[in-house]
Amino acid sequence: MLNVLNREEAVSLIKEKTAFLIPAAEKADIREACGRVISENIVSPENVPSFDRTTVDGYAVIAADTFGAGDSIPAQLEITGEILMGKNACFTLKRGQCAKISTGGMLPHGADAAVMVEHTDSDGGLCLIYKSVAPGENITRAGDDIAVGETVLKKGTVISPEHTGVLAALGITEVNVYKKPVIAVISTGDEIVAGNPEPGQIRDVNTFLLSAASKALGCDVIEYGAVSDKKEEIENAVKDCVEKADAVIISGGSSAGARDMTVDIINTLGEAYFHGIAMKPGKPTIFGMVKGKPVFGLPGHPLAAYFVFRLIVAEFIKSILSIPPGKPAGSGILTENIPSNHGREEFLCIRLNDKNEIVPLHTKSGIISVLSSAQGFIRIPRNTEGLNKGTVMEIYGL
Amino acid sequence: MLNVLNREEAVSLIKEKTAFLIPAAEKADIREACGRVISENIVSPENVPSFDRTTVDGYAVIAADTFGAGDSIPAQLEITGEILMGKNACFTLKRGQCAKISTGGMLPHGADAAVMVEHTDSDGGLCLIYKSVAPGENITRAGDDIAVGETVLKKGTVISPEHTGVLAALGITEVNVYKKPVIAVISTGDEIVAGNPEPGQIRDVNTFLLSAASKALGCDVIEYGAVSDKKEEIENAVKDCVEKADAVIISGGSSAGARDMTVDIINTLGEAYFHGIAMKPGKPTIFGMVKGKPVFGLPGHPLAAYFVFRLIVAEFIKSILSIPPGKPAGSGILTENIPSNHGREEFLCIRLNDKNEIVPLHTKSGIISVLSSAQGFIRIPRNTEGLNKGTVMEIYGL
Repeated sequence: MLNVLNREEAVSLIKEKTAFLIPAAEKADIREACGRVISENIVSPENVPSFDRTTVDGYAVIAADTFGAGDSIPAQLEITGEILMGKNACFTLKRGQCAKISTGGMLPHGADAAVMVEHTDSDGGLCLIYKSVAPGENITRAGDDIAVGETVLKKGTVISPEHTGVLAALGITEVNVYKKPVIAVISTGDEIVAGNPEPGQIRDVNTFLLSAASKALGCDVIEYGAVSDKKEEIENAVKDCVEKADAVIISGGSSAGARDMTVDIINTLGEAYFHGIAMKPGKPTIFGMVKGKPVFGLPGHPLAAYFVFRLIVAEFIKSILSIPPGKPAGSGILTENIPSNHGREEFLCIRLNDKNEIVPLHTKSGIISVLSSAQGFIRIPRNTEGLNKGTVMEIYGL
Repeated sequence: MLNVLNREEAVSLIKEKTAFLIPAAEKADIREACGRVISENIVSPENVPSFDRTTVDGYAVIAADTFGAGDSIPAQLEITGEILMGKNACFTLKRGQCAKISTGGMLPHGADAAVMVEHTDSDGGLCLIYKSVAPGENITRAGDDIAVGETVLKKGTVISPEHTGVLAALGITEVNVYKKPVIAVISTGDEIVAGNPEPGQIRDVNTFLLSAASKALGCDVIEYGAVSDKKEEIENAVKDCVEKADAVIISGGSSAGARDMTVDIINTLGEAYFHGIAMKPGKPTIFGMVKGKPVFGLPGHPLAAYFVFRLIVAEFIKSILSIPPGKPAGSGILTENIPSNHGREEFLCIRLNDKNEIVPLHTKSGIISVLSSAQGFIRIPRNTEGLNKGTVMEIYGL
C-alpha cells in the first residue's frame, strides 16, 4: 500500500526522481523564441549603449564650461561642429567648445554633459548657454544600460516580448533554449469517447485540456487519445508512450478499480512511488517511473485533472526546465466564510468582484464550466478551521 | 499644429476612427486555437453532462427510500442490477430498488440520488443502506454544468487551455476566431542599423520588440526593418505597409526634425489626428489614418516605444478584436516616495520585493535593460503632487 503524501512532499519526491531529466539545448531565433525557456545564463557580450550618448537635443559640452551660467550671464562657447545621427564623433572637444547634437547622438571625446537646446541661443559660430549642467547630465555613458559581462537573463527564463527587445539591443538574435519536453496524454475510462457520446458516455475532455495546458507550458504533445479501462489497453498505451515521450500523463479512470489498475500497470512496467495526495480536488493522483520516464496518473474529472496538472505536473515541467516554482499572482480578501476542510489542502476556483475581492466559485464534483469563468484559484491549507469573510488570501493564476 | 491629448482621449479617438476595422472570421481547430480570439459568442449546443450522473461509487437510489436509515436501522433495498460505465441505464428504478453504479455512471430513470458504497452493505440481491440521502445528493443532473443555450464564452475571449477543455466538453472542436490582424513595423533613424553598429550607430531594437509584442497579442507581423530619416524612404515605407498590413507602427526617429517629418508624411498620404500624448514616457506619439489604415508614430527609445505600444497600440488591437481593455493585475504598496510629475501621466517599471511591495525601477531615458527585470509597471496620474511611501498603487502586467 502506497502512502498518501501532502502536496509539497509529492512535488519534492517528483523533482528528486526526475532531476536527471534535463532537456537538451537547441538554438532558436529570437523572432520565434517567445515562450521558449533559456537554457543558460545570457551574459552581455558588449556595452549598451556602446558609446556615450546624449538623451536630449542640444549641445555636447564640458560641464565645467557651463558652471555659473544663468539667464542673465550665459556661458559663451564656440560651436566646433555638428554631430550627425549615426556618425562617429571623431574629434575631441576642448575647453570653451561645444558641438550641436541630437538625442541619441554620440558624444565627442572630452564632452561630459549635454545642454538642452531650449536653454541655448546660437549665433553663427557662438552658442550662449543659459543653464549650467553637471557632469553626466543629459547623457548616457557606454554600458550605463547594460555593461559587458553582465548577466541579463538567467537560465530558466521564459522569453517574453520584452526580453526579445533586450536581446536585440545586445545583438543577440539567436539563443540557446531547452528543447521542448514531449508529453504524452492518455485519457482512460470506459465511458470516454472521442466522437459523439451515446447515452451514458461522455466526451473526452482531458485529452484537449491537458494537451493545451502542456503546450502552454512550452511542451510538445503526443495525443494518445481515449482508451477503455481494460488493463491490457492501458498497459500498451503506457509502453508505447514511454518510448516516444519524455513524460506520460494518464487521466482517469473514474470507475472503482481503475485507479488501482494504473498503479499495478506502473509497478509491472516500472515503479510507482505514491498513490494519493492530501489535496482536494486531486486525491487519487499517482506518480511512478517507467523506463526512466515519469508517469503521472491524474483523476478523470477534468477539473480535478486540471488542478493536479497545474500543481503537480506543471511543477515537474518547470523543474526540469529550471523555471522557478509558481508564485501567487496577488492577493485579495474573501467575500464569504469558507468552512473547515477536513485535513486536505483544498483548491478553489475564484473570480474577482468589482472591488477585486475574492468570490469563491463553489462547484459540484465533475463540473468543468467553472474553468471558463474562473479568474484564478485560492489555496486553503490543510486542517484550516474554516476561514472568515474578510481574510486576506493569496490568489494564483490559472 | 496638432493638440496634445491625454491618454484616455487618445485611446478613445483611435477607437472611434478604427471602429470599422473588424477582422474577418475564420475557423480554427481548438487544438491550435490557444491565444486566438473568439469572434462570436459561443452558445452551448447541448447539456453537460448530457445525462444524470453519480459523483460517487455506490448505489443509485430513490432518496425517499433511504429516509430514516441509520447505522442501527439500515434501509433494505433490492439490487436490480449494475450500471456499467459508458452504458445506457435503460431501465426504471421502482420504489424499494437500487442499482450498483460507479462514479460518473448514468442514473437510471426514477433514481434521484446516490449512496456512497462506504455507507452500504450488500448481501446477494439485497443492499443495506446506513445513511439517508436527500434528493439530488451525490448526483449531477443533465445540464447542471452547462445548460443547452447557455453562453459559455463571449466574443473577444482570448482562448486559454482551460477554455479548450470547456469547448471539448461541448463537442466543439472548431471555433470561429478573428483572422490575425497584420501589423507592419518600421524602425526609423539615421543611427539605427540592422547588423553590427559602427561607432555612433545603434542596433535596431524596436523591430524585434514591437514585432514580438504584436505577435504576443495575436497579430501577424510584417517586419519592414530599419530605414533612415530620409523623408522619401519613410514615405515609401508607409505607402508600402498600408497596402500590405492592417495597421502600421513607425518608431523613431529620435533626431530633431524626424517627428515632424512623420506627421508631414501622414498628412501627405492621409490625415494625422494627433501629435503628442500627455504621458511619460511616450509624449511624441503620433496617430493618423492613411488609406483607411491606422498609422502609429512611436518614440524611438525602446522603453518609450514599448510603453506606447502597451498603452495605446495594444488597446487599439484589443478594441478591433473585441477584447476588453487592459485592467490592473493587482496592487501593492510603494516602498519609497515618488516626486510630483509635472502634469504628465507617468508610467514607471517596478519590481516586487519579498513582501510583494512595489519597488520603482528608476531609469534614465533610453534605457532598455529594465525590461528584463521589471515585473510590471505603475501609473502615476497627471498632476499628482508626489506620492508617499506606503501609498497603495495598482500594478499592471508588462
